[in-house]
Amino acid sequence: MERSEALKIVKPHLTEHRYQHTIGVTDTSVMLAKKYGADVKKAEIAAVFHDYAKFRPKEEMRQIIKDQGMDLQLLSYSSELLHAPVGAYLVKTEVGIKDEDILRAIRYHTTGRVGMSLLEKVVFLADYIEPNRAFPGVEEVRKTAEQSLEEAVLQSLKNTVQFLMKQNQLVFPDTIAAYNDILLSIKGK
Amino acid sequence: MERSEALKIVKPHLTEHRYQHTIGVTDTSVMLAKKYGADVKKAEIAAVFHDYAKFRPKEEMRQIIKDQGMDLQLLSYSSELLHAPVGAYLVKTEVGIKDEDILRAIRYHTTGRVGMSLLEKVVFLADYIEPNRAFPGVEEVRKTAEQSLEEAVLQSLKNTVQFLMKQNQLVFPDTIAAYNDILLSIKGK
Repeated sequence: MERSEALKIVKPHLTEHRYQHTIGVTDTSVMLAKKYGADVKKAEIAAVFHDYAKFRPKEEMRQIIKDQGMDLQLLSYSSELLHAPVGAYLVKTEVGIKDEDILRAIRYHTTGRVGMSLLEKVVFLADYIEPNRAFPGVEEVRKTAEQSLEEAVLQSLKNTVQFLMKQNQLVFPDTIAAYNDILLSIKGK
Repeated sequence: MERSEALKIVKPHLTEHRYQHTIGVTDTSVMLAKKYGADVKKAEIAAVFHDYAKFRPKEEMRQIIKDQGMDLQLLSYSSELLHAPVGAYLVKTEVGIKDEDILRAIRYHTTGRVGMSLLEKVVFLADYIEPNRAFPGVEEVRKTAEQSLEEAVLQSLKNTVQFLMKQNQLVFPDTIAAYNDILLSIKGK
């Protein structure tokens, strides 16, 4: 699928602000994929569709998580976590994208997980550092991303956990598991 | 068991520095137990013995964890985590303390866990804020401890996770689970 066609499909599902974010994530994903040797085409499509379910009603998302036998733990955490796994499901069933690498990159773009693929790391990081993002620490992660994909993902995970704790929000266990996993992988090198 | 007798038993197992820390944890545990309605006698004994295994050889601690069917995950994380569960075991088998409340307060004093008892929270917090402790953030937690045991434990857990991440150290999953659990309990009030 061409980028323009993909963007045309996703646009009606997003606000203008979120559409601009999606373009930022797409450009950044393509750049990171080229830099770190991920599949550029898959990175582009995963990025275009990563927030496909962002504005679905929460009740619909909860229902899909139950009906599709997804991790029920998700229902006990922030509703911000739902759109990623539900998005992967809807991109498959409504848009017809069957590539499991792409779907996984969408599914885990918010929480991360143990054993993230190169493509998953690219989309996760692009979502964090795309040019429209402006929050404390993002510039530092952008700099790290010029040197090391893994270090930059690690930094994003740390910032995310720190942000959640400062806000007195729950931390999804997979995010800590992803942090531990990437830390071990970096230390093992 | 009297405090003086307990201290006499634990002293040969500790350095002078750690013995002073133990006295600080004991005084603070007694104070917190009185303030928040925990069993004062149990808090005192758990505190005296909380670091009983601190200076055991790591290999011995790893072996005990394997032999006693403890959580094998512990072996994949910092060796700093081993002395708490191993301590609970040795305090039972070598000192003869059989009270499960006391043993749990020793077992979880480093990581925390989901469903911490009042006594566990008292010893956990006392270990964090006893007067000899001097690290960034401790004064804030001491102040919080004057108002709310749960808020102070939450703050300690946050600081611990933040500290570990800054140092590029692994975070034990139970610590995040304890954070989420106490956060929910506070929000539910």
